[in-house]
Amino acid sequence: MSGNILEQSCPIPKSDYEHILLAHGGGGKLTQQLIDKIFYPLLGNEILARGHDGATLTTSGVKLAFTTDSFVVDPIFFPGGNIGDLAVNGTVNDLVCCGAIPKFISLAFILEEGLPIEDLWEIVKSIRHAADKSGVKVVTGDTKVVGKGKGDRIFINTSGIGEVIEGTNIGPEQCSPGDVIIINGSIADHGIAIMSKREGFSFETTIESDTASLNEMVTEVLNKYKSVHVLRDPTRGGLASALNEISNSSKTGITLYEDKIGISESVRGACEIMGFDPLYIANEGKILMILPEKDAPGVLDILRTHREGKEAAIIGYVTEEDPGFVKLRTTIGSSRIVDMITGEQLPRIC
Amino acid sequence: MSGNILEQSCPIPKSDYEHILLAHGGGGKLTQQLIDKIFYPLLGNEILARGHDGATLTTSGVKLAFTTDSFVVDPIFFPGGNIGDLAVNGTVNDLVCCGAIPKFISLAFILEEGLPIEDLWEIVKSIRHAADKSGVKVVTGDTKVVGKGKGDRIFINTSGIGEVIEGTNIGPEQCSPGDVIIINGSIADHGIAIMSKREGFSFETTIESDTASLNEMVTEVLNKYKSVHVLRDPTRGGLASALNEISNSSKTGITLYEDKIGISESVRGACEIMGFDPLYIANEGKILMILPEKDAPGVLDILRTHREGKEAAIIGYVTEEDPGFVKLRTTIGSSRIVDMITGEQLPRIC
Repeated sequence: MSGNILEQSCPIPKSDYEHILLAHGGGGKLTQQLIDKIFYPLLGNEILARGHDGATLTTSGVKLAFTTDSFVVDPIFFPGGNIGDLAVNGTVNDLVCCGAIPKFISLAFILEEGLPIEDLWEIVKSIRHAADKSGVKVVTGDTKVVGKGKGDRIFINTSGIGEVIEGTNIGPEQCSPGDVIIINGSIADHGIAIMSKREGFSFETTIESDTASLNEMVTEVLNKYKSVHVLRDPTRGGLASALNEISNSSKTGITLYEDKIGISESVRGACEIMGFDPLYIANEGKILMILPEKDAPGVLDILRTHREGKEAAIIGYVTEEDPGFVKLRTTIGSSRIVDMITGEQLPRIC
Repeated sequence: MSGNILEQSCPIPKSDYEHILLAHGGGGKLTQQLIDKIFYPLLGNEILARGHDGATLTTSGVKLAFTTDSFVVDPIFFPGGNIGDLAVNGTVNDLVCCGAIPKFISLAFILEEGLPIEDLWEIVKSIRHAADKSGVKVVTGDTKVVGKGKGDRIFINTSGIGEVIEGTNIGPEQCSPGDVIIINGSIADHGIAIMSKREGFSFETTIESDTASLNEMVTEVLNKYKSVHVLRDPTRGGLASALNEISNSSKTGITLYEDKIGISESVRGACEIMGFDPLYIANEGKILMILPEKDAPGVLDILRTHREGKEAAIIGYVTEEDPGFVKLRTTIGSSRIVDMITGEQLPRIC
């Protein structure tokens, strides 16, 4: 893109909304609207335009991945984790989705006046644990403090640098008809764990977040299978939004099979009670892998040897028909369109 | 550091405070206490421990600089800039302080529900302007939204990657007795611009922030003078805190000459009225350069050819005496210790 837009009078584009809504941060249609109407027109360049979870860059002949995420999850402590390990695992997994081995992360805090030092200590401890587990080093940081009522206890930004694994070429645009869609386990645990804790629901079994770093498992796959086309962690907006994005970028269709998508009994029950569709609920330890069908058995074999991939399964296919649409074949044999999330179903789950 | 601290029961260290105070984000003694008592013990590694503005890393044989900063400035629009260009320039300058050429930045927003879309548009426009001016590309991003009253309009994190200029070895520990201390212009403009706007003070002339990227100017110096020992942008906590940090890391003394430190008449007047010591006030377009005295004339010649360095001057010397202390020779000939900032003099100036 040329810099021309900045030299014009640069009017703000007509938007459906005059103010930011919670849904602008939901990872669905309104988030996409901000990206399409503000960020791309003003900031666009060939790297940003790839629409990936992170950027792949070449600098001094070395291919790097670079990614950023701010974490504003509420509550900051939840079953299965806290905002600290979530912030490390989230950025590690975004690097993984670029086909990279995560190496270094940065850590920036925005603390609200009055946060107990003990909470900060617990969170930083989890950060170190998660970093050690995924083999990354926290190499640089920043701390800001805002007054009472101008923040919400703690927000964390992590940015990460990884080394792209040689021979890989991962990106949503690589998705091809005939590819299979694999996921490494059951869906919707993270979002439901957060919502249950926030709303004070209790179920027979405590639903835990699936937050985990997936780099060891995925690196093993990529070292053997350079044919992987797309990697994507279905976080905000869940499986449905992630696949819609991929289907849009690649101009392919996607068909999912409802009976292949794992959902634990307790999560399914919680979704029914709270009125949520698990396809739209965030995951923090899941990865979608899209690759040629012939390599699927080998990839599944590798995934299933890892704790995070024991329940890995093929859940759908990429098709030539219906480009830009995600369809779900239901257990009763009917078929329905799975759209991107529109409103803000679950605010502040990451 | 070994991982042992995490395997112990890991008690939180005794601290003077049980909760986060505004001063923990002030860049002074309490910020240092968080770093020394929480971040280093839990996260410490040889890269983080260098105590630099950013990290210098070697990955696949390439030497990179990596840095992060969150921006929470209040007000978000101020004379001379806004939170957008401040966020770009701040991270660009941190990379410059690592002796690097800034290349790529990430951009992560935490927006408060209700922020006018028009404000976001203006801010993103300034981000693009500032990025173009300093030759960096915004390559990856993230947007989160928090509810009304859980944030403060907009917080921005920028992280950056730069390529370290070959032959340089910049770091606070390189500071040596006999070195001169150069700054590229007058001090305290940014902090006073922010405070004046926030408090609604008006002076005869509007005091503008000095926010600017300094990479072009500094790169020209580093291409010619590999002998530069330390580069530091005196932001939060001002000149006094930056030099105290350097003096502590390098175990050298520092002597400043009051009559050599430039302060504009309007800033001096505002400081008197508001009761601030300009040595502690933040700058966003200034850099401290510490280098052997023999190279000072050549470096000053280069600086003064740039708009941002017209008033560059030697303001002090590094000494063997009084290691760890910064002394000021006043205009009336006396001498006083310039300590690190203790409380939170100016909250949320960046």
